[in-house]
Amino acid sequence: MRAAVFRGGELVVDDVAEPVPGKGQVLVKTLACGICGSDLHALHYAPRMVEASRRVSGRPGMDLAQDIVFGHEFCAEVIEHGPGTDKRHKVGTRVCSVPVTFTAAGSATVGYSNIAPGGYAERMVLSEGLMIEVPNGLSDEQAALTEPMAVGWHAVERARLTPNDVPLVIGCGPVGLAVIAGLRIKGVHPILAADFSPARRRLAETMGADIVLDPAEHSPYTRWQDEATPEGFDPENPLARLGVGPQRRPGVVFECVGVPGIIQQIFEGAMRNTRVVVVGVNMESDTIEPFFGITKEIDLQFVLGYTPQEFALALHHLAEGKIDGAPLVTGKVGVEGVKQAFQDLANPEAHAKIMVEPWR
Amino acid sequence: MRAAVFRGGELVVDDVAEPVPGKGQVLVKTLACGICGSDLHALHYAPRMVEASRRVSGRPGMDLAQDIVFGHEFCAEVIEHGPGTDKRHKVGTRVCSVPVTFTAAGSATVGYSNIAPGGYAERMVLSEGLMIEVPNGLSDEQAALTEPMAVGWHAVERARLTPNDVPLVIGCGPVGLAVIAGLRIKGVHPILAADFSPARRRLAETMGADIVLDPAEHSPYTRWQDEATPEGFDPENPLARLGVGPQRRPGVVFECVGVPGIIQQIFEGAMRNTRVVVVGVNMESDTIEPFFGITKEIDLQFVLGYTPQEFALALHHLAEGKIDGAPLVTGKVGVEGVKQAFQDLANPEAHAKIMVEPWR
Ligand SMILES: [Zn+2]
Ligand SMILES: [Zn+2]
Repeated sequence: MRAAVFRGGELVVDDVAEPVPGKGQVLVKTLACGICGSDLHALHYAPRMVEASRRVSGRPGMDLAQDIVFGHEFCAEVIEHGPGTDKRHKVGTRVCSVPVTFTAAGSATVGYSNIAPGGYAERMVLSEGLMIEVPNGLSDEQAALTEPMAVGWHAVERARLTPNDVPLVIGCGPVGLAVIAGLRIKGVHPILAADFSPARRRLAETMGADIVLDPAEHSPYTRWQDEATPEGFDPENPLARLGVGPQRRPGVVFECVGVPGIIQQIFEGAMRNTRVVVVGVNMESDTIEPFFGITKEIDLQFVLGYTPQEFALALHHLAEGKIDGAPLVTGKVGVEGVKQAFQDLANPEAHAKIMVEPWR
Repeated sequence: MRAAVFRGGELVVDDVAEPVPGKGQVLVKTLACGICGSDLHALHYAPRMVEASRRVSGRPGMDLAQDIVFGHEFCAEVIEHGPGTDKRHKVGTRVCSVPVTFTAAGSATVGYSNIAPGGYAERMVLSEGLMIEVPNGLSDEQAALTEPMAVGWHAVERARLTPNDVPLVIGCGPVGLAVIAGLRIKGVHPILAADFSPARRRLAETMGADIVLDPAEHSPYTRWQDEATPEGFDPENPLARLGVGPQRRPGVVFECVGVPGIIQQIFEGAMRNTRVVVVGVNMESDTIEPFFGITKEIDLQFVLGYTPQEFALALHHLAEGKIDGAPLVTGKVGVEGVKQAFQDLANPEAHAKIMVEPWR
C-alpha cells in the first residue's frame, strides 16, 4: 500500500507491506488523518524522543533504523475483521480509535511504532475493543479531530475547574485551540487566550475565547490578573492573603507552547494559587526558579494524552456540534503532499491542521 | 531589651529598643522560640532572600542595613495591651500567633522584618486578632512548635490525600517530621520516609513513619513503588494505563529538602500520576526535564506557610497529644547561645529543633 514513510530521518513516499489484522484486530481504510505537531517534532527530533522514552519507561518505543508510518489522529472505515474479533462494527462502518493497538508482540502506539503503521498510509490495523463508531454523520475530517480534541479535553478535566476560575491559554496552536474548545463546553468565562499570530488569535475566538491577546503588544498575564481581580482588592494587604475581604478569582493557566522558559515565564506572571496545566510537550531541559512557585503556591500539573472515556467524549462533542472543528482544517493532501504539508504547517498564518487523505 | 540580632550579616547579642504596642497590638514576653531552617538560611543568604522577595512581590521585605531580630516560631505571654485592643486575652495568658502583625506602617512578618522583632528577643508586639491561647497546659516549648507543625499540616492538606494514597517523605528535618506527623493524623499508611541521617530516621519513626529508608543504601523510590504495587500489576501492560486490571495505589511525594536537583530526582523516581508536594524552600535556580513530568502526568504542588485555621489546628494537635513534639526539642539556649546553636544545628545527628528562651 502507498504511504508517507519516515525513513532515515526523512519523509518519503513508498509502497509498504500491507498490514494484516492479528488476533482481536481489524483492518481499516484510512479516511482522514491529521498531521500533528508531535509528528513535525518527531521528523527533526526522533532520536531525542527515543532517548527520552528509554529514560522514562526503559523502552525506546521506536527503532529508527526501520520504517515508521506516522499518523495517530485518524478516522477510518472497517474493511476486514481479523481472528478472534466480535465483528461488532460491520464492514463499511466509520470508526475512530485511541492510537494504541495490542499485538502478539505487545502493545504499540499507532503512528509511533514500527509494528503499528499510522494514518499516513492507505490502511491500518486497529484493536477492535478500542474502536468507536463515528455518530451523526460527522464528516471524516472532523472525526479525525477527535484525538487532538481529546488532548484538550483531558487537560481541561485535569485542571479541576470551578465555575469561578479565570482561564488563560498560552499558545493557540491545535492543542491550545482544543483547550479553548473544552473550556467553552465547561462554561467558565472569560476565556483568555494569547498567541503572537493574528490568524491563530482569530481561530481562538472562533473556538470560544472571549478575550484574545497579542503578547507582542501587552502582557497577557496583566490582563488576566485584571479580569480576576475584583473592585477593592488590594494585593498589598496581607489580610486578603488570610482570606479576609475581597478575593481574586482563581486563575488557571494552560501552557500550550512547550518550549524552554515558558514555565518560568508563567511563574513570574502567575497570581497566588494559580494552577498551571502543562499541555505543551517540551522535550528539552528547562530552568525554573522554584521560589516563584513556592511564594505563589503554584500547582504545576503536567498532563499527557487522555483516557478512552475522554476520547469518546471528544468525538461526541464534535458529533453533537458542541465543538465545530471545521475552521481548524486548513488543508488536505494525499500521501505525496505530506512532506510539503510539514513545511507549510510552520506558518501559523496559513495553517492550523492539515488532513492527510491517503486514498487520494 | 536583650536580643540576638542579625546585624551586618552576623548574629550579635545586644540591647535593642523596647517594642511598643501600636493600635490593635499586644506586648508579650517571649517564653520559647524555635530556631528555624529558614533562619539558618537567612544568616547566609539574606541578600538573596531580599532579592527574591523583591522579584516576586515587588517588595524587599527586609532592609539588611538595619537590625533584624529573627524568630517566628514562638510561644509568648501577654504583658500589656496596646490602644484599640479588646483585651480578650488577660495579662499572663500564654499565646501563639501566626508571625504576622499589622502596624500603622503596614503589615510585617514577625521575625523577618525591621519593624517586627521576633522571638530571639525578650519581648515582641503581636496583633491581638491573630493571637490564640495555648490550651490544656501545653508546655511553652511544645506550643512554640505550632508554627513548624502548621507548615507540615498545610502541606498535607494541600496534597488532597485519599485513604488509598502511599506517601513518601523525602528529607526528615523539622519540616519533613511535621509532614510525617500530619500524615499520621490523616491515617494514610504506610508512611515512608527517607533521610541520610540515622538520628533523623529515628525521629521520623517517633513521629509516625511506618518505613524509614536510607537513600545511601537503597532507592527510596523503589521501595515506595513496591508498597504501592499490587500483586499481578504489570507496568508494561498498557491496559493498566487505560484503567483495566489491577492498579497501583496513588503515590504522593513530599519534597522536604529544598536543594537544586531534588525535583528532577523525584521526576525520575516517581510513578505515573504522582502528586509531588514541594515543601522544601530552594532559593536557587533549578533544572528539570519536563518530559518526565509530562510522561508521568506529575502534579507538582508548591506550598508555603499555612492559613490561620491550619495554624490553630496545629496548636490543638499538640495540645491534645495528637502530635508529641517533645522528641523534636533537642536543645535550649538563651540569647547568648543563639550563635552557637546555629552552628550546632548543622549536625542532624545531634539536633532537630533548638529553643531560644530569651528570659534566661
Ligand atoms: Zn497529536
Ligand atoms: Zn519556620
